[in-house]
Amino acid sequence: MASDLPVLLAAVSTLSAVHLVFQARRVGWSRMKHKILPPSVTGPPEFERTFRAHQNSVEMYSVFLLVMWISGIFLNEVLAALGGVLYIVGREMYFIGYIRESKKRLPGFYLVLCALLFLTVMSTIGIIHSFLDKYLNITLLS
Amino acid sequence: MASDLPVLLAAVSTLSAVHLVFQARRVGWSRMKHKILPPSVTGPPEFERTFRAHQNSVEMYSVFLLVMWISGIFLNEVLAALGGVLYIVGREMYFIGYIRESKKRLPGFYLVLCALLFLTVMSTIGIIHSFLDKYLNITLLS
Amino acid sequence: MASDLPVLLAAVSTLSAVHLVFQARRVGWSRMKHKILPPSVTGPPEFERTFRAHQNSVEMYSVFLLVMWISGIFLNEVLAALGGVLYIVGREMYFIGYIRESKKRLPGFYLVLCALLFLTVMSTIGIIHSFLDKYLNITLLS
Repeated sequence: MASDLPVLLAAVSTLSAVHLVFQARRVGWSRMKHKILPPSVTGPPEFERTFRAHQNSVEMYSVFLLVMWISGIFLNEVLAALGGVLYIVGREMYFIGYIRESKKRLPGFYLVLCALLFLTVMSTIGIIHSFLDKYLNITLLS
Repeated sequence: MASDLPVLLAAVSTLSAVHLVFQARRVGWSRMKHKILPPSVTGPPEFERTFRAHQNSVEMYSVFLLVMWISGIFLNEVLAALGGVLYIVGREMYFIGYIRESKKRLPGFYLVLCALLFLTVMSTIGIIHSFLDKYLNITLLS
Repeated sequence: MASDLPVLLAAVSTLSAVHLVFQARRVGWSRMKHKILPPSVTGPPEFERTFRAHQNSVEMYSVFLLVMWISGIFLNEVLAALGGVLYIVGREMYFIGYIRESKKRLPGFYLVLCALLFLTVMSTIGIIHSFLDKYLNITLLS
């Protein structure tokens, strides 16, 4: 195996995947607690908030993985992995907060948005730099 | 940074990610307009159509990224990126059309399907070619 | 094109993408059968089970792709591709079973979980090995 593989990105990605599956698991526990049998996805507010908290993670998950990998490969792996860890922390805060009360999802949500913004800006810089280098032969960064 | 990174695929992917987050944002605006508080996802037909338009994008997003990257890496990056741009245009047509009326989502939907079909066929050709080359030592394309 | 591209991972991924789109197609057929017009996602139990069966595939799809590619690139491509095939078989069993009766989704679900667990364990081993090699210069496996 090559030693130049982006192992930090792989590690944070795998951690985020385990975290997402653990959120799905907690939706399952909420189903049991409130006796909501599949395929129903409606019930008491606490169950619906738990269900939607997981759904929101699912909706953004591909976007997160994409910008983390692109920023890590096109710009800086360590910073991208740090952005990824921030994102996971934000996701957990969002999930725990949302279960308690709809408004309490917001601090985690803003952290998630900050992490995504950070990774998207890094991706864009990396792409522009790489585009200039590859197609126009201009080197901006050393 | 290596200058042989697939920067066109990265650029189109990042654009598609920003587009998907922008769709999620418009679902949020529709929540405010119709005063639908999370976690509820039901309400007036216009809100439900906006919500489902975004959900449909989410459901297909990983499939899109996958076939774009595979066709771009295993066959031709420029064609794959073009297919990706077509897909994003189709997604926007789908979203705007669906908000107005359920039937008006169809032109965008057909464009999305065409783009996915194009990328899937390209992926399949690239995979078959690469498989023959790697495991059977047969070179079909120069 | 380089002959060292992970063509088996690409092939299984493309197959899984076609399978996921085929599940979406069957949700569409179920809409027609039960005359449920978009954007509605509620109706007779059979329709709701079909809808949720597809949704469950969507929820886990990115996680599946991620751990298959990481385990394939960081540890062993053939074993990862086999895990991927098992996952697709489990997804089809889950889908077919769920449509008939909620409880009949379980055998497929357990197969899906086994495949994900297998791929996640492989990913973790590959990441640890690669991390030790890259950052601490320790080689565990030959």
